[in-house]
Amino acid sequence: MRDFSKDHEWMSINTATVRKAHGKEVPLLDILDACARHGVRAISPWRDQVAAVGLKEVSRAVRSHDLALSGYCRGGMFTASDDAGLARARDDNRRAVDEACELNAACLVLVVGGLPGALQGQAEYRDIGRARAQVTDGIAQLLEYGRERKMPIAIEPLHPMYAADRACINTLEQALDVCDLLDPAGSGDLGVAVDLYHVWWDPKLQTQIERAGKRRLLAFHVCDWLTPTTDLLNDRGMMGDGVMEISKVRGWVEAQGFAGYSEVEIFSYRWWERSTDEILRTCIERHRAVV
Amino acid sequence: MRDFSKDHEWMSINTATVRKAHGKEVPLLDILDACARHGVRAISPWRDQVAAVGLKEVSRAVRSHDLALSGYCRGGMFTASDDAGLARARDDNRRAVDEACELNAACLVLVVGGLPGALQGQAEYRDIGRARAQVTDGIAQLLEYGRERKMPIAIEPLHPMYAADRACINTLEQALDVCDLLDPAGSGDLGVAVDLYHVWWDPKLQTQIERAGKRRLLAFHVCDWLTPTTDLLNDRGMMGDGVMEISKVRGWVEAQGFAGYSEVEIFSYRWWERSTDEILRTCIERHRAVV
Repeated sequence: MRDFSKDHEWMSINTATVRKAHGKEVPLLDILDACARHGVRAISPWRDQVAAVGLKEVSRAVRSHDLALSGYCRGGMFTASDDAGLARARDDNRRAVDEACELNAACLVLVVGGLPGALQGQAEYRDIGRARAQVTDGIAQLLEYGRERKMPIAIEPLHPMYAADRACINTLEQALDVCDLLDPAGSGDLGVAVDLYHVWWDPKLQTQIERAGKRRLLAFHVCDWLTPTTDLLNDRGMMGDGVMEISKVRGWVEAQGFAGYSEVEIFSYRWWERSTDEILRTCIERHRAVV
Repeated sequence: MRDFSKDHEWMSINTATVRKAHGKEVPLLDILDACARHGVRAISPWRDQVAAVGLKEVSRAVRSHDLALSGYCRGGMFTASDDAGLARARDDNRRAVDEACELNAACLVLVVGGLPGALQGQAEYRDIGRARAQVTDGIAQLLEYGRERKMPIAIEPLHPMYAADRACINTLEQALDVCDLLDPAGSGDLGVAVDLYHVWWDPKLQTQIERAGKRRLLAFHVCDWLTPTTDLLNDRGMMGDGVMEISKVRGWVEAQGFAGYSEVEIFSYRWWERSTDEILRTCIERHRAVV
């Protein structure tokens, strides 16, 4: 297992972690500057942040700062109540792959979608089995496109509390079942993003990490689970402030040969009240101490 | 599958559903009176509500109203950071069995506990594997006592969002693994409480219900999952107001031979603002329409 205590060479910053400072949105280029200033070597930006600046300009900034992308957030949201919606999702996901290529991302991370309409407050249908079938079809199509563009696709199982509105793939086992179905050879073109926030609770976590193996472990995300958690979306904890055994799980992932970045992804209305520098300093400190 | 559309013969009311009215606590005896007034045949009361009145007095009221108990809430909370804590949990669980016997409950429902101290805000240790081992040991001991007293023990897997602070058994599969370990013969002395709020999202729900079979399906709880859900604990939905496919899952449970009550258990700061009569009327109406 790699020693992370001396530096933050293998820490990546998911840009959602510093999306706000003092409660206000921070433009992506300012985030990139701050990351470079703190010696961060890798980031994972969000499509909406990229779109707000423009892909080409972000691409130039990424290159000029010599930043790697541990992943690109995000493709997915495959479900729909009609064919037109499914086609829109397909096209949008292809654009996400194109953008990930332009930014030279390690993978495109998928938040696969839940019941269509549920995120807007009213599900258009309730059959989660149907949603799951649409997701599998959507990933199958996207995998072909990703292969053409040489962009690996990482399915991120989301915590079951997001099953209705964000992602109906909710365990690592379920994500790996989809990988087995669509890429039985284990080519490495399709894999998983293991975000501890979503999977830390899973009694089968270790066995499924072993099942995934190196070729399917495409990304590793850290934060912490707070007790109490006061918001379903934006109350993630800084590493060390919660109950997760982060380094134990990193050990499991690295035992499979994973040698990539550990990506800090913290959606937190608490941390977003602080300054970008304070958030980044704390991420670095905690990454050395507890990741 | 039984026809629930004509009456509410097989509806049970978990008394937490009507624990408050107009924002204020309702004494348990008033709840029992209200249930009887609405033709409710079964309830599932909570230990703290029973303790506030006194076990003997509750027992008399239950008998005088001819109410069945679809379950008794709750045993569990087995985890601790020292032996004294484990012993306290063991003793308290035995008292819970005794109370369940006095009230002639169909089973004692277990919320098994998470990381000790987490519910109070500070976990005393972080090793969820250790917590799970303590839970298994605790259930093993309690099962012996339950057998002596002829009180079936129902493990209730809780939603993964409660893994840290309330219950580290989080899927039906995991609960059934414990049943297999401790009661390999499937005696019926140990089983599961299937509360849809906790398991509706699970891609293995149907297969695990089939695995459980009639002897291990000891209780069936309904409510709904709202989108958005605004509180991790007290924002459960009334049946029909959310995204669950309740009658589909009831069909799976009944296909195994389950013929007991469907118990309405809704923790909701919204519904607790209404009157007891309005809550009960709505439960009955929705039970007929969508359960």
